[in-house]
Amino acid sequence: MTAPILHSYFRSSTSFRLRIALNLKGVATCYRAHHLKLGEQSAAAYLNLNPQGLVPALELAGGTVLSQSLAIIEYLDETIPDPPLLPADPVTRAKARAIAQMIACDLHPINNLRVLNHLRSRFGADDEAVAAWFHHWVAQTFTPLESVLRDRERPSPYCFGSRPGLADICLVAQVANNARFAVDMAPFPEIQRIHDACMALPAFQAAAPANQPDAE
Amino acid sequence: MTAPILHSYFRSSTSFRLRIALNLKGVATCYRAHHLKLGEQSAAAYLNLNPQGLVPALELAGGTVLSQSLAIIEYLDETIPDPPLLPADPVTRAKARAIAQMIACDLHPINNLRVLNHLRSRFGADDEAVAAWFHHWVAQTFTPLESVLRDRERPSPYCFGSRPGLADICLVAQVANNARFAVDMAPFPEIQRIHDACMALPAFQAAAPANQPDAE
Repeated sequence: MTAPILHSYFRSSTSFRLRIALNLKGVATCYRAHHLKLGEQSAAAYLNLNPQGLVPALELAGGTVLSQSLAIIEYLDETIPDPPLLPADPVTRAKARAIAQMIACDLHPINNLRVLNHLRSRFGADDEAVAAWFHHWVAQTFTPLESVLRDRERPSPYCFGSRPGLADICLVAQVANNARFAVDMAPFPEIQRIHDACMALPAFQAAAPANQPDAE
Repeated sequence: MTAPILHSYFRSSTSFRLRIALNLKGVATCYRAHHLKLGEQSAAAYLNLNPQGLVPALELAGGTVLSQSLAIIEYLDETIPDPPLLPADPVTRAKARAIAQMIACDLHPINNLRVLNHLRSRFGADDEAVAAWFHHWVAQTFTPLESVLRDRERPSPYCFGSRPGLADICLVAQVANNARFAVDMAPFPEIQRIHDACMALPAFQAAAPANQPDAE
């Protein structure tokens, strides 16, 4: 059986999400690095696989290419049910997906490398302005996220229940991303606690940027 | 039986998504408008329901509040299976979710009202600069999206199969959003075709911004 190919960049936080999910599901992959700062994701051969020119993508045996980290993680959860990455009951599933999307829709894309580069080239933003932008959007989402997590009906080391899932995956990858811009986590103790609980697990550790073949 | 409350703003494209899904599923709601340009989504009473202060939200009978349009649509699809909003087989589901997320993660949030306002206040962006920003990010996603849709294995009036679903919902709401910034749709004929096929359906028409109680 041929292992699927994981198209990834060590520092990409969406790639980090997918690597965690693959580890939690026990899926072995062939790692294929695309260096975003060198623009390798825009090479013709990769655009042929993923016209969006973004990582991650998962190339299944047979050649089907899946893109978008959350869509791929849902695919993994549907085809490899154990361990589940979403709670069982529909309302809690919706709450878990909502946390994932607070980060994946309302925070991460606005602070993505290509947006920060565009701020520099279009508006002449310097390092300080870029950092202020990054911090602003983290606070816009992490402040309500902290409150949502604090108000959960049942305390848990993870976002929901007794094991990590989709919401935790997005949370952990975003906290790692924040560290690159020295975001002060003191106002977000519950987020930090969940991050630390997850990072104590081998599936999360092995997925971390520093532990990838292309880490610098 | 008490109808759920739909917290919405007529012009919000994420609210538009949810309204379409509710119509396709035949769910009647009580419409509660929050005027984004007047900042009504940041009123204390609403923040109490949805700490993120964003629309849409769906307040279920009993008081549970669901947020994030895609999470709510998945909830509707899980609790009211007919008609399905996602294809049946896992790979095609992943492709449908990926199209939805190309728009919901990589395009819409970067062009959202709060980001455009921040460009104005932080970088002094004028109307022209804001429009250029909007057009840039539309092209970044619509160009590969057009190519993904053109290369589908089976031709269909919708993104996938014989009825509209999650991908179409996101596509239609984004095209409506584009119109506010006069985006030229000529380079995107397949996207335009799918938009037009959907908008011919009553569920999409009734959900359109112009047909909401708070339309101006």
